[in-house]
Amino acid sequence: MPFLPAFSSAEQWFLQKILNGIGRAPIRLVLNDGVEVTPPDVSPIGTLRIADRRTLAALALDPEIGFGEGYSDGRIRVEGDLVQMLEEVYRSMAKVRDGLYGRLVSRWQDWCQANSPRGSRHNIHHHYDLGNDFYKLWLDSEMVYTCAYFPSPEATLEEAQVAKMDYISRKLQLRPGEAVADAGCGWGALALHMARNYGVSVKAFNISHEQILFARERAAEEGLTDRVEFIEDDYRNISGKFDVFVSVGMLEHVGKDHYAEFGDLIHRVVGESGRGLLHFIGRNQPADFSRWIRKRIFPGAYAPALREALNVFERWDFSVLDVENLRLHYAKTLEHWLNRFEAASRQVSAMYDARFLRAWRLYLAGSLAGFLTGSTQLFQVVFAGSQCQPPLWTREPLYAGAPEPEPAAERKAQWTHAMS
Amino acid sequence: MPFLPAFSSAEQWFLQKILNGIGRAPIRLVLNDGVEVTPPDVSPIGTLRIADRRTLAALALDPEIGFGEGYSDGRIRVEGDLVQMLEEVYRSMAKVRDGLYGRLVSRWQDWCQANSPRGSRHNIHHHYDLGNDFYKLWLDSEMVYTCAYFPSPEATLEEAQVAKMDYISRKLQLRPGEAVADAGCGWGALALHMARNYGVSVKAFNISHEQILFARERAAEEGLTDRVEFIEDDYRNISGKFDVFVSVGMLEHVGKDHYAEFGDLIHRVVGESGRGLLHFIGRNQPADFSRWIRKRIFPGAYAPALREALNVFERWDFSVLDVENLRLHYAKTLEHWLNRFEAASRQVSAMYDARFLRAWRLYLAGSLAGFLTGSTQLFQVVFAGSQCQPPLWTREPLYAGAPEPEPAAERKAQWTHAMS
Repeated sequence: MPFLPAFSSAEQWFLQKILNGIGRAPIRLVLNDGVEVTPPDVSPIGTLRIADRRTLAALALDPEIGFGEGYSDGRIRVEGDLVQMLEEVYRSMAKVRDGLYGRLVSRWQDWCQANSPRGSRHNIHHHYDLGNDFYKLWLDSEMVYTCAYFPSPEATLEEAQVAKMDYISRKLQLRPGEAVADAGCGWGALALHMARNYGVSVKAFNISHEQILFARERAAEEGLTDRVEFIEDDYRNISGKFDVFVSVGMLEHVGKDHYAEFGDLIHRVVGESGRGLLHFIGRNQPADFSRWIRKRIFPGAYAPALREALNVFERWDFSVLDVENLRLHYAKTLEHWLNRFEAASRQVSAMYDARFLRAWRLYLAGSLAGFLTGSTQLFQVVFAGSQCQPPLWTREPLYAGAPEPEPAAERKAQWTHAMS
Repeated sequence: MPFLPAFSSAEQWFLQKILNGIGRAPIRLVLNDGVEVTPPDVSPIGTLRIADRRTLAALALDPEIGFGEGYSDGRIRVEGDLVQMLEEVYRSMAKVRDGLYGRLVSRWQDWCQANSPRGSRHNIHHHYDLGNDFYKLWLDSEMVYTCAYFPSPEATLEEAQVAKMDYISRKLQLRPGEAVADAGCGWGALALHMARNYGVSVKAFNISHEQILFARERAAEEGLTDRVEFIEDDYRNISGKFDVFVSVGMLEHVGKDHYAEFGDLIHRVVGESGRGLLHFIGRNQPADFSRWIRKRIFPGAYAPALREALNVFERWDFSVLDVENLRLHYAKTLEHWLNRFEAASRQVSAMYDARFLRAWRLYLAGSLAGFLTGSTQLFQVVFAGSQCQPPLWTREPLYAGAPEPEPAAERKAQWTHAMS
């Protein structure tokens, strides 16, 4: 260890261990009493200032939880650009294998946070029922909490979320009168968009109580209750027959042990002649979310490697028609969210507390770093049953004459037009 | 078995067994002495007329090889539309599980036709070295022997093959001066297209002697030998560093046991900052090619489920950027090939014999039926190394202002222009 000048103290040994644990990212580690280590041969892009020995020990034992908890509590301070530093850590940690302790904690979390029908209710409630007023502070006006689609990087977040909903509807080639099942519908924006602009009827499922209440109100306000039904129930309980199955940002909460079962459900719902789209955070290689993310932010969540996700389709002979990787669009989305979140930081602190603020800042910044570095990917997969003809001859119509997003006031007229 | 009116003879028992073996497709089976069976409750769309008991026994023992050999030899005659009948058989056979005998023959074929460097030479020679004059009879003028891309279903085969080569070049966003490795280059059309129209330099590999000779001649004729090198060698021996890896219609010959090794090779060739495209026949679910196809047409070939193919990319952290399923484009391509093949049937018979003619008719018709029914799929996968930024922000530029295919005479000028 040539970069450890002298074995001067236990603290320095701990710091060095932490530095190794994060793959020797170009970051300086400093204990409040002044002891520090710096990675060799690089100029550090920032500093982590660690308040005390307890924090140091927690960080050495489990860098993921130790850092998340220390940062949230204010016992670890970051000097420098948080996103940039996390990017460097992600890049360098890609080469580090998780230790035995970390693997044991991960499996323990898997067990405690299993996505059984009951477990899922708990896991979803933890995140999505924080209060609609909180999410209103930093999401777009349509309240869409998934990766947007930016026709150009300069598009606004509002434009990009509408463009995403439209892009999905066009990829699915929705036709007036068709029946759509929407599994994990968030605050309902996509279900409403499809019914309003494509003349389909949608049954939308969600186990977040807060989100369903909000979505129902919107449907009523827009006069769409005859075409969009919001159902507070688990995706496993979807029944009836539909032409189209769509699920945006829910596969991450299904859990990797349930993909075949999820495929069974899709097959029950759309049969051999239906089609659908899954939109989900994925990876190049199988890997868990950080233990801190699963502890504090998304219990039970898992982003599959694309290969793992294909288990949803294979058993029932579904054809994969189109896979698009929108990783950089999620980075752009998170950039908008993080900026809006920071702009609302005083309200967030008042609503919760400073610890919550820091935890969510870390979650958003870490997610941004994940998509920038390619540690996480975003896949949109269009699929069709074995007796369903591919709905498009080429993709060209998806990119020709896309309707401009229209302001909300003009929508009802537009919908009437779409139905005629 | 209500549809077996009476257990009148051993022949009828055999015929019934065959009918069950092909999943009770709506096809009448008739022995030359007049014994026949018809599936119940459907009007048959055609008749298989079986010449003798030997053929009947072979068909009962192994419907795949029995039918292929019987049809080629003229001992099984088809009355009705061959493609349509094969479509029905594929549809109904999807529900039938292979018997023990079939599975044993399949594994024996795997073993005999393994894609070792030496085995691959034998397997490739068997198909691709049949003589360039034969392929000239029914391929397009550019001699492209893979799925074309039809901007509209009415495009000619020549237009669609040029459009395909251009589409691949655009998906890869080739830039002048870049180095491209082309694994399994056929008669060289794609390598020449890329060098000519996109100003890249290409090293193209192939173990078919006939194809390489032809490709080299074309490069010399076009004055492209300084930019395109055709190398008669196994893909496993590609060395050097490239920006882009492309392989169109070769993964089917790599063999499913070699995907991780193939991924290692791609990683050696383009590293973490390169990108590439694989174009291959695949499936919704793992399944072998028919034993007859492997015996007579494509020894050692295997079309992977998309999930299996992703094993190429996963180990080295490659990102899948784009997957497109062009199944119906391959059906359209095969329709053109089959029509041209039939138009040239007299020349084919003269070049080989009637048995060869019937075997190749069956192969082309069966492939067409496979893509029409979805028994086979065609995947184009764009991928990038973990340090390679996705080359496109959205796919929109792929469909905007595609250059019209230009006649060969204007090409040199065009290439000079592309380089300037």
